[in-house]
Amino acid sequence: MKKFMDDDFLLDTDTAKTLFHEAAESASIIDFHNHLDPQAIYEDRCFDDLAGVWLGGDHYKWRAMRTNGISERLITGDGEPYEKFLAWADTIQNSIGNPLYHWTHLELQRYFGIEETLSPETAEMIWETCNKKLQTKAFSVRNLLRMQRVKILCTTDDPADSLEWHRKLKEEEGLGFKVLPTFRPEKALGIEKEGFAEYVGHLSGVAGISIERTADLLQALLLRLDYFCAEAGCVVTDHSLENEFYIPAQEKEVDEILKKGLAGEKVTREESGKYHGYLLTELGKAYAERGLVMQLHIGAIRNTSGRIFAHLGADAGVDGMNDFNYAAMLAGLLDQMDLEGKLPKTILYCLNPKDLEILAVMAGNFQSNEEGIRGKVQLGSAWWFLDHRTGMEHQLTALADVGLLSTFVGMLTDSRSFLSFPRHEYFRRILCNKVAGLVEHGEYPANMEYLKSMIRGICTENAMRYFGFGRL
Amino acid sequence: MKKFMDDDFLLDTDTAKTLFHEAAESASIIDFHNHLDPQAIYEDRCFDDLAGVWLGGDHYKWRAMRTNGISERLITGDGEPYEKFLAWADTIQNSIGNPLYHWTHLELQRYFGIEETLSPETAEMIWETCNKKLQTKAFSVRNLLRMQRVKILCTTDDPADSLEWHRKLKEEEGLGFKVLPTFRPEKALGIEKEGFAEYVGHLSGVAGISIERTADLLQALLLRLDYFCAEAGCVVTDHSLENEFYIPAQEKEVDEILKKGLAGEKVTREESGKYHGYLLTELGKAYAERGLVMQLHIGAIRNTSGRIFAHLGADAGVDGMNDFNYAAMLAGLLDQMDLEGKLPKTILYCLNPKDLEILAVMAGNFQSNEEGIRGKVQLGSAWWFLDHRTGMEHQLTALADVGLLSTFVGMLTDSRSFLSFPRHEYFRRILCNKVAGLVEHGEYPANMEYLKSMIRGICTENAMRYFGFGRL
Amino acid sequence: MKKFMDDDFLLDTDTAKTLFHEAAESASIIDFHNHLDPQAIYEDRCFDDLAGVWLGGDHYKWRAMRTNGISERLITGDGEPYEKFLAWADTIQNSIGNPLYHWTHLELQRYFGIEETLSPETAEMIWETCNKKLQTKAFSVRNLLRMQRVKILCTTDDPADSLEWHRKLKEEEGLGFKVLPTFRPEKALGIEKEGFAEYVGHLSGVAGISIERTADLLQALLLRLDYFCAEAGCVVTDHSLENEFYIPAQEKEVDEILKKGLAGEKVTREESGKYHGYLLTELGKAYAERGLVMQLHIGAIRNTSGRIFAHLGADAGVDGMNDFNYAAMLAGLLDQMDLEGKLPKTILYCLNPKDLEILAVMAGNFQSNEEGIRGKVQLGSAWWFLDHRTGMEHQLTALADVGLLSTFVGMLTDSRSFLSFPRHEYFRRILCNKVAGLVEHGEYPANMEYLKSMIRGICTENAMRYFGFGRL
Repeated sequence: MKKFMDDDFLLDTDTAKTLFHEAAESASIIDFHNHLDPQAIYEDRCFDDLAGVWLGGDHYKWRAMRTNGISERLITGDGEPYEKFLAWADTIQNSIGNPLYHWTHLELQRYFGIEETLSPETAEMIWETCNKKLQTKAFSVRNLLRMQRVKILCTTDDPADSLEWHRKLKEEEGLGFKVLPTFRPEKALGIEKEGFAEYVGHLSGVAGISIERTADLLQALLLRLDYFCAEAGCVVTDHSLENEFYIPAQEKEVDEILKKGLAGEKVTREESGKYHGYLLTELGKAYAERGLVMQLHIGAIRNTSGRIFAHLGADAGVDGMNDFNYAAMLAGLLDQMDLEGKLPKTILYCLNPKDLEILAVMAGNFQSNEEGIRGKVQLGSAWWFLDHRTGMEHQLTALADVGLLSTFVGMLTDSRSFLSFPRHEYFRRILCNKVAGLVEHGEYPANMEYLKSMIRGICTENAMRYFGFGRL
Repeated sequence: MKKFMDDDFLLDTDTAKTLFHEAAESASIIDFHNHLDPQAIYEDRCFDDLAGVWLGGDHYKWRAMRTNGISERLITGDGEPYEKFLAWADTIQNSIGNPLYHWTHLELQRYFGIEETLSPETAEMIWETCNKKLQTKAFSVRNLLRMQRVKILCTTDDPADSLEWHRKLKEEEGLGFKVLPTFRPEKALGIEKEGFAEYVGHLSGVAGISIERTADLLQALLLRLDYFCAEAGCVVTDHSLENEFYIPAQEKEVDEILKKGLAGEKVTREESGKYHGYLLTELGKAYAERGLVMQLHIGAIRNTSGRIFAHLGADAGVDGMNDFNYAAMLAGLLDQMDLEGKLPKTILYCLNPKDLEILAVMAGNFQSNEEGIRGKVQLGSAWWFLDHRTGMEHQLTALADVGLLSTFVGMLTDSRSFLSFPRHEYFRRILCNKVAGLVEHGEYPANMEYLKSMIRGICTENAMRYFGFGRL
Repeated sequence: MKKFMDDDFLLDTDTAKTLFHEAAESASIIDFHNHLDPQAIYEDRCFDDLAGVWLGGDHYKWRAMRTNGISERLITGDGEPYEKFLAWADTIQNSIGNPLYHWTHLELQRYFGIEETLSPETAEMIWETCNKKLQTKAFSVRNLLRMQRVKILCTTDDPADSLEWHRKLKEEEGLGFKVLPTFRPEKALGIEKEGFAEYVGHLSGVAGISIERTADLLQALLLRLDYFCAEAGCVVTDHSLENEFYIPAQEKEVDEILKKGLAGEKVTREESGKYHGYLLTELGKAYAERGLVMQLHIGAIRNTSGRIFAHLGADAGVDGMNDFNYAAMLAGLLDQMDLEGKLPKTILYCLNPKDLEILAVMAGNFQSNEEGIRGKVQLGSAWWFLDHRTGMEHQLTALADVGLLSTFVGMLTDSRSFLSFPRHEYFRRILCNKVAGLVEHGEYPANMEYLKSMIRGICTENAMRYFGFGRL
């Protein structure tokens, strides 16, 4: 029996241990997609207690607590912080097999040096030990990031955002890491959602462009995109694709659809698909012209529980995994950009594991490029409901089976939490174990220098090169 | 090499052996979903021979025999019982990797004490040994159930059923187990199927309610539901969802659709979806008010071979696995009930393995409840074409990855056979092996007391509490 | 650690080694589906160099090279052969986990006796060693086939083909293997594709039948089918099913659709589905009458990159994996033939792994037959983007879980390359390892004589019997 979560956690063979400890463990972290708050970094905040840092906004934990039969009062309600923490301690003990169990204990080990496991019995000791540390400057947001060798952070930002905090952070000396924005024009594409017209009005004001037709909207967005790039070093963009996201349409038709949206009228699913398809194509081509990366996150279904949504708003732990088919649509979208020689570097993420193989193959269909970009179209790392050992192994296997694992740009946290960076370690252990498994199984020669260099690539260097982050 | 199906069958580690032998092996069986005949239990029947008990109605075996090239005469036809048994003996030898191989030998070992494997060579010996035993009272239906420590059986019953046998069994003393009905209003929902109008007429007569509108139909069904609960202790309901099962609709619209159905007219798929959606929602809310469990079995495609269906009728081994997408529909159905605070305890089963992750996530979206029910919405155990080691491991993994395995209500046979209860043992071995694997792999601490208690929960106690069966 | 790709490659247990070395390794190869050029076999060609034989037409390798950032000039362009080979040597080193890595080294080992691994360092030595051998008669096309104990080859052929080379090969003495055509009327069914009318005109000329209505087209096709059978021993047919492939329709309706197609008009997807459904049904029944096998390859999406397609035409490495749902359609198609007692022996292949379980179950629905054919409807071996260890293990598991693995007709290369026959060895190692795993794990008795005979069946004998190839 292996010891619980020791130095060789998830490393099943000697080759795995060598690869992890000698190549992956100390590699810098490039977290090119997360939802961290740049203001908190600029202000270098400290947290009061574990309840705040763990339970304040983590919908993964909320879901688990609800499943454990905990009252909403102790999850998102007005329960006392320690009461909430106790409810969490009971929940985590009941979470065998769930990545929350590992994330929680990696965080206790790496940040706080606590080797005990969290349960109702140890809850008080852990509460007190961690809270004491959290309140010290050594556990400020910036120091938490430094503890984990984070070198690049790409937050997720609306085009209308002023990037005030990113720009201030850019001026800071001795920060030790960069905080860059990601251009995510989700609200501008959300023509089927409430608040669309208001948002476009807001964007119009920020960009100083009157928006009546699609061309206006694109112009406003690209103005903001250039601002993101020039003012804050943006190199990456992001889109969440739900339902129909590419139905071919002409600009004129899309103009009419936009008019309906701006008038606050409901658009049909087909209209929404045309609108999305047109904007994604035009934006993608603009990204290509600027050398930016386009991330496509496909397959969430949002706010399924209207009761919780009404009570808590979005991101409350009631989003799900959708199951619509989209291979042909995605091929159409990528092809449309590629035909004009303007397919940007693209990362394809799916939420439903049934789509991993499709995306791994689809990436291979659009790799041809004369810029010599390795892995121009990527299968993104296991995302959200796939962010666990099963999902990561599946993603790595799907990629290796039909593509080149060696070109992979690797892991990101997608997280709102400043304590979530050990998830990179979690990924790296699984990665090293997978690669080592192939070697130990006689499927690849034990050329350790090559393998270590490949592992360092997937941990750090491939992403540095792919996104064009320059030197560390 | 491990010995063939010995005491430690499917148990790969010491921890697995400990968990199984010390916590799971002797735990009582709660079989909360099956298709057993209550009359046979009341009459405490005996079987004539192995052909009758094994081949009389088991479509799993029929499929295997057809694949093995056996003539229908020796499967469902007028062949001699021993001839049929010989054909089965040849088939089972050719069934490596199929759960039938394990079920067959678990049944030979556990009920008959036969350690030999079934093949044409051993067929005669096994035929004679088993038949002798079967004809004794020690192998009556009730005694077969007692041999396996069965404590609760929930059969599957039509709302119009008189429950004659359940009520008689309730009066029996010293039975040692309970036989409860399940409320399965399949025919009342089957507006797209032949015989609908006739069935509603029959239901109308039994309930004493004239049925013209949806409200009448619901009233009749709820009268019968209350009868099921009051007369026979029903705590669980069941629905098979095929094709569209939830399209939002108003009562008036559904009334019109019902009228068409009662007039024997064909309804469209959209109409059928509206009818199903409305009835499922209203019934679900009624289940919630009564504290009953709603089971949703999603994804079968029935009677695909018209030739066999014409010859043998339903349940003849030609049902298949469908592949339609339904995440958004299911979210809509659950949300509709939840919005009114009337989502019942719900178990989601899928037939297609591609849907396991979707359902595991969906369950998590609707867990919030103030009654403190752990795992209020469940991912049901691997069902039908998934009822094998691969499928069970997949279901347990999907559940653990995004939910709480510890809250799982566990296994059921879904069987028509009185010899099928070792399938619980099969499940428990796989469960213990999975949990032990996490511990042995360093992913959860070896806290054996907690783990044994969790295993006992999944084997027996979670279901007792969830369904409200009371004390054993 | 296991040695890299040694004698016991992929064989994890003693039982696996025994099964492979004593039953599978020396079994003859029946390659019942490939895309080899019969003219090259008749002319017994030799290759100039490794670049030609490996990179001339292999879109698997092209995709990998593109992903590795190689310029199209060194893939499909006018680069020097050795330059291209060097680019490939760099790519293969970066292909850990991809089956290309194993195929490449199996080919180097089995045909050329080279144990070194291909990388930029060894490229020159391997280039020179192999080229020298390739240019000798010992490495002619026929001798490459003989080296691998190939006994039957079924190429893929258009109904209008004269079968000139098949007929000449039939006359050859001492060939040591048979080269038979496969009837693949893809262009006659491709009413939604360009060039349809021209093709039908060509077919009409070859068959000597004026084609105006569906009955004419069928008559022409069946004339050619009978020619394929009589002149060249054809026993197998093949269809690629993309998008809707079965929507019930009457002959008259299909006649109108055909008229549109012949007039060069665009047909709708529904019309195409009706046309395909009708022709597949009628052809299938004709196959059944002749005792032929019908192969259905389901789920490719073709030529996704319009840029590459415009530049290189079809089969250029930009086909993908589609994700449409088709269980109900497939059930309808099979049932339509079965209802008339004219369902042919059928092999179902899927490109998307999410469909393996569906097809494994669907096969079981249509096994009933009075001819005693074992495994009349087959789940075909892992195909194209599934043709790797993961995919093969998945296919074998899906088949064993719900069907009879012992009836499986096994592997085919589906390849354009004369060097691809070690893929049978690759499959056999995986097969033996899977079967042995069940035995070593206590799930099937270690009855070695039975198991070896089963393995020989899956390698060679089941296919001989199923297709009716007669004696070797």
